[in-house]
Amino acid sequence: MKYVHRIWIFTIVLFLSGGWISDMEMIAQNPDKKYVMVIHGGAGTMKKENMSPEQEKEYKNMLRKALSTGYDILKKGEPAADAVVATINILEDSPLFNAGKGAVFTHDGKNELDASIMDGKTLQAGAVAGVTNIKNPINAARAVMDHSRHVMLTGRGAEIFAAEQGCDTVPPSYFHTQSRWESLQRILEQEKKNDMNDLYRTPDPFQNEISSPDEKYGTVGAVAMDAAGNIVAGTSTGGLTNKRFGRVGDSPIIGAGTYANNETAGISCTGTGEYFMRSLAAYRVSVLMELENLTIQEAADQVISEIGVLGGDGGLIALDQEGRIAFSFNTSGMYRGTVDEDGHIEVMIFAGE
Amino acid sequence: MKYVHRIWIFTIVLFLSGGWISDMEMIAQNPDKKYVMVIHGGAGTMKKENMSPEQEKEYKNMLRKALSTGYDILKKGEPAADAVVATINILEDSPLFNAGKGAVFTHDGKNELDASIMDGKTLQAGAVAGVTNIKNPINAARAVMDHSRHVMLTGRGAEIFAAEQGCDTVPPSYFHTQSRWESLQRILEQEKKNDMNDLYRTPDPFQNEISSPDEKYGTVGAVAMDAAGNIVAGTSTGGLTNKRFGRVGDSPIIGAGTYANNETAGISCTGTGEYFMRSLAAYRVSVLMELENLTIQEAADQVISEIGVLGGDGGLIALDQEGRIAFSFNTSGMYRGTVDEDGHIEVMIFAGE
Repeated sequence: MKYVHRIWIFTIVLFLSGGWISDMEMIAQNPDKKYVMVIHGGAGTMKKENMSPEQEKEYKNMLRKALSTGYDILKKGEPAADAVVATINILEDSPLFNAGKGAVFTHDGKNELDASIMDGKTLQAGAVAGVTNIKNPINAARAVMDHSRHVMLTGRGAEIFAAEQGCDTVPPSYFHTQSRWESLQRILEQEKKNDMNDLYRTPDPFQNEISSPDEKYGTVGAVAMDAAGNIVAGTSTGGLTNKRFGRVGDSPIIGAGTYANNETAGISCTGTGEYFMRSLAAYRVSVLMELENLTIQEAADQVISEIGVLGGDGGLIALDQEGRIAFSFNTSGMYRGTVDEDGHIEVMIFAGE
Repeated sequence: MKYVHRIWIFTIVLFLSGGWISDMEMIAQNPDKKYVMVIHGGAGTMKKENMSPEQEKEYKNMLRKALSTGYDILKKGEPAADAVVATINILEDSPLFNAGKGAVFTHDGKNELDASIMDGKTLQAGAVAGVTNIKNPINAARAVMDHSRHVMLTGRGAEIFAAEQGCDTVPPSYFHTQSRWESLQRILEQEKKNDMNDLYRTPDPFQNEISSPDEKYGTVGAVAMDAAGNIVAGTSTGGLTNKRFGRVGDSPIIGAGTYANNETAGISCTGTGEYFMRSLAAYRVSVLMELENLTIQEAADQVISEIGVLGGDGGLIALDQEGRIAFSFNTSGMYRGTVDEDGHIEVMIFAGE
C-alpha cells in the first residue's frame, strides 16, 4: 500500500539523517535479560547540562523506588495489575512527576487528572478522565476495569464511582505544588503578551509553553508481566499545563496512551498527546507486532518515527511476554527504567544513556 | 502469530455456523458503483415483525433525507467534512435516533452527548464528550478539529468552547423526548427489582436493558468522500440509556468509534461501545486494509467477527477512496444507507435487505 511505502521512505530518511534512531540503538535492551517491568516518568526536553547532579539523583532514586515496589509484588507471584498500580502509585505520590501529587495546573488553576489501565490477558480496560479529588487516578482506572462494565468514566461521575469503590479522595488543594503553579503563571504571563486565542489555535500544543527540564512532559507509566505471563500496562497524568475546556489527551484513551495484549505487548506512551491519539500509538505498536511480525523495538521505533513525521514528539515503553522491552522517544530524554527477573534495576534519563 | 491464528479459527467457526456472515454476503455492495457517502443510524435488535410499515417508512425517509442533504453538498464540490456534518445534523435533529434531539437519558435523567470527526487527508480529528446543551454535538467536534490544537474536549469545558465557536446551544430540556424518558423509567423499574450494583457490574452493558426496536442502539454516523477524493468520518450519540458516572463509550474516541485515513478508509461504528473501545474497532478496519491488504468488506467483517468473539455486538460502515463501501454488523439490523456518485440513494434496516 502507498501508505506503508511512504512511512518507510520517511523512516529511511530519518535513519540516514542520524537523529533519534542512533540513540535508540545505544539504549537497546540487553537481549540476554528477561525483564519483568518497564516504567517511564515522561519524555521531554531535559538535557544533562540543565539538570543538577542532585536533581538527577532525586529522579533516579524515585524511579528505582517505583521499580523496586513493583518487583517485590511480582516476585511474590501476585498479579501484574497489582504491580503496575503500586509502581504508578509511587510516581503519583511524588511531586517530581506530572501525575497524582505533581499534576500540572489547568488554565483555570485546577488540577484535572487522567489515567488508564489494560489487562493483556482479558483485554479488559479501565480509564478515568478529568478527576480532581482522587489521590491516585490509576487506582480509579483499575476500579473501572475490575468493578464496572465500562471502560471510561469522566469528571464528577468518575469521582463518585472511584470514591464508592474505596479510592482515597483528597481535597483538590492536595495537588498544589509550588513549581507547577509557577509554571502556569509563567505561561499565563506569556499568553498575556500574545493573542491567547491565536496561540490556542496553533497546531503545536506546546508552542506557547516555557521549556524547563521537568514541566513539559511528566506523564508516568508502567508495564509489568507477572509469574503467570500476563501483561498489564498503565498510564497516569496531570495532562498539559494550561490546558483548557476539559481537554483530554492520550493517557486515558485505550489504544492511544495505553494498550496491552498478552499476544503482543503492553505499551504506555508519553508526549504530545494529540499526536498519539491521532496515531493510535500504543495500539499501533501491538498491531505492527501482530500483523507485520516486527520486533518490539522495531514496532516501537516505527510508531515514534511516524509520530515525528506528523509533527509530534514524545516516547513510549513496551514489554512483551518473552520479557523483551523497548524504549523509543524522539525527545532529548525520557525518565525510564527496567527491572529484570532477578531484580536488577536500571534507570536512565537522557538519550544515549 | 498465535493471535492471528486464533482469530482465523474463530472466523472459520463463525462462517461454518452460518450466522451473520451469510447476511453480510447478501448485503455486499454493488461493485460497479462508486459510492460517495455511507451512513448509519445505529445497529440493534430491530426485527421486521416488530416494526410497523409506518415506522419503517419513517426511518427510511429520514435516512434518505440525510443522504440527500450530504449528496447535494458533495455534488457542489464542497468538502467531505461539510457533507458529514450536514448529514449527521439531519439525524441529530430527528427524535428517531439516539443522537442530538433523540439522545437517551442517563441514570440521573440527563442527556450527555458525545461526537467525533476525523479528516482522512490531514489525520486531524476532533471530539466532544458529555456535552448537555449543544444542539449538534458533531458541530462541536468539528470545531475542536478545525479551531483548536486538541483532539478531545469534555464536559462543561467542551460546552464553553463550542459556544465560543458559534455552535447552537439549547436548554437541556430540548433533549427530552417522551419515548426515551419512558425507556429510562422502565429500566429504573427493572433495576429496583434487582440489585442495581450487581447489574451494574455485569460484563454485558446491555443485560439490564429492556429490548425495544429502537432504544438499544441509535448512534448515528456518516462517511463521505468529496470531489478531491478526501474522506471524512463522523459519529454522534447520546450514549447508553441509564449510563452513570460520566460513562463515555466509543463514539467520541478516535480509533474506536471513528477513524479516517485517505490511504485506507473512513469508518464509523455503533454498538456495545466498550467492546469497540477495547478492540480499537474503527482503526483496526483501517489497519487490516493497510497491513494485511484486506478489502474494505473483508476488514469490516473481520473486525465485527472479532468483536463478536469478545462478546460485543453492533456494526460499522466504511468507505474507501475508490468509492467502495462496506457494512458489517452482527445484530438483526442496522439503519443504514448509501448514495453513489450519480445521486442514487439506497436505504436499509434489516439484515439481508
